[in-house]
Amino acid sequence: MTPIELHTYQTPNGHKASIMLEETGLPYSVHVVDIDKGRQHEPEFLRLNPNNKIPVIVDPDRHRTVFETGAILFYLAERSGALRPRDADEALTTLQWTLFQAAHLGPMLGQLWHFKVFARERLPYAIERYENEATRLLAILDHELARRPYLVGAQYGIADIMTWPWINALSKLGRSLAHTPHLKRWHAAIAARPAVRRGIAIPHIAAD
Amino acid sequence: MTPIELHTYQTPNGHKASIMLEETGLPYSVHVVDIDKGRQHEPEFLRLNPNNKIPVIVDPDRHRTVFETGAILFYLAERSGALRPRDADEALTTLQWTLFQAAHLGPMLGQLWHFKVFARERLPYAIERYENEATRLLAILDHELARRPYLVGAQYGIADIMTWPWINALSKLGRSLAHTPHLKRWHAAIAARPAVRRGIAIPHIAAD
Repeated sequence: MTPIELHTYQTPNGHKASIMLEETGLPYSVHVVDIDKGRQHEPEFLRLNPNNKIPVIVDPDRHRTVFETGAILFYLAERSGALRPRDADEALTTLQWTLFQAAHLGPMLGQLWHFKVFARERLPYAIERYENEATRLLAILDHELARRPYLVGAQYGIADIMTWPWINALSKLGRSLAHTPHLKRWHAAIAARPAVRRGIAIPHIAAD
Repeated sequence: MTPIELHTYQTPNGHKASIMLEETGLPYSVHVVDIDKGRQHEPEFLRLNPNNKIPVIVDPDRHRTVFETGAILFYLAERSGALRPRDADEALTTLQWTLFQAAHLGPMLGQLWHFKVFARERLPYAIERYENEATRLLAILDHELARRPYLVGAQYGIADIMTWPWINALSKLGRSLAHTPHLKRWHAAIAARPAVRRGIAIPHIAAD
């Protein structure tokens, strides 16, 4: 097959797609979208995703472009047969925890990142708001992972790949997993996967 | 069939589920979760959704509880046969725009709501941040709806039901659709649907 194009950058959302591609074994080519230089706002990229967010995949053989990481991961599971939910019930639970990441964990950690790292003004109220939300959401994941090895059950899958890169990046926000031992165990198990180690190295960006 | 339990309140996210149930014609019972009184934090509700958010559905005949509105809408489409994507390609595009709402429009308007309406402190930086995000996201929807009647194509569906209640609530944030004529046309077309008119009246909450 023609390699799938992966348009991405070195971010937690980018890593969801690169880890998934590594897990599937599908051939793919990497196209760096340098968001530090604002390349996601250029017309060429906006034709791929009007919402100016990486990652995006293009599957030339199917004439298909996909944005939103949850949709990308479900598409690649179908395309490859790898990590595909085994039945309708598992697909629904996978979608549920995919949405938990996409609608809660990702946006709230994203806001924490903004107010703690990027904001022009230091606003303690906003930082506290998102620190508290992060603590609450991590406690939910820890509680779930106390009862089963992975988010959807005994098997690693799409929902774990959605969530892992954001947990992996927590140390950059000055947070540890010391108080969430089940989440810490889950993080370590996934970190040891060869496909994950390869995925987080993508895209390779040469140091200046 | 045994009626589906809908645990909900008068909010845009609650309306996604009540509108969908009205569109499907499935029998359902309404269970009010008074978030003004903090009922979503009680153990009985947390057993339904550990993330303390309404709505949740329980389908007694299938022994299935579903949270996250995107998962609820896909489940109800499958359960009823109504508004079900017609093929894998349409299902993927539906998932993509469902995630656009769940991961961007919903969280960003939710933050705008917080800082403009609920926050203990008035923070112009935060309000401006989320006003700008709202303007950007509404422009994307307007651009898409200039090219097709509904978010996924010629047919009304799950992605529209995900998005409509948040657009419908914009006036409460002091925003109008005057500068997004295609979004305005789409909003009016959906507002005229009988199932939508019934859905936004749920739950009926008696005035004090």
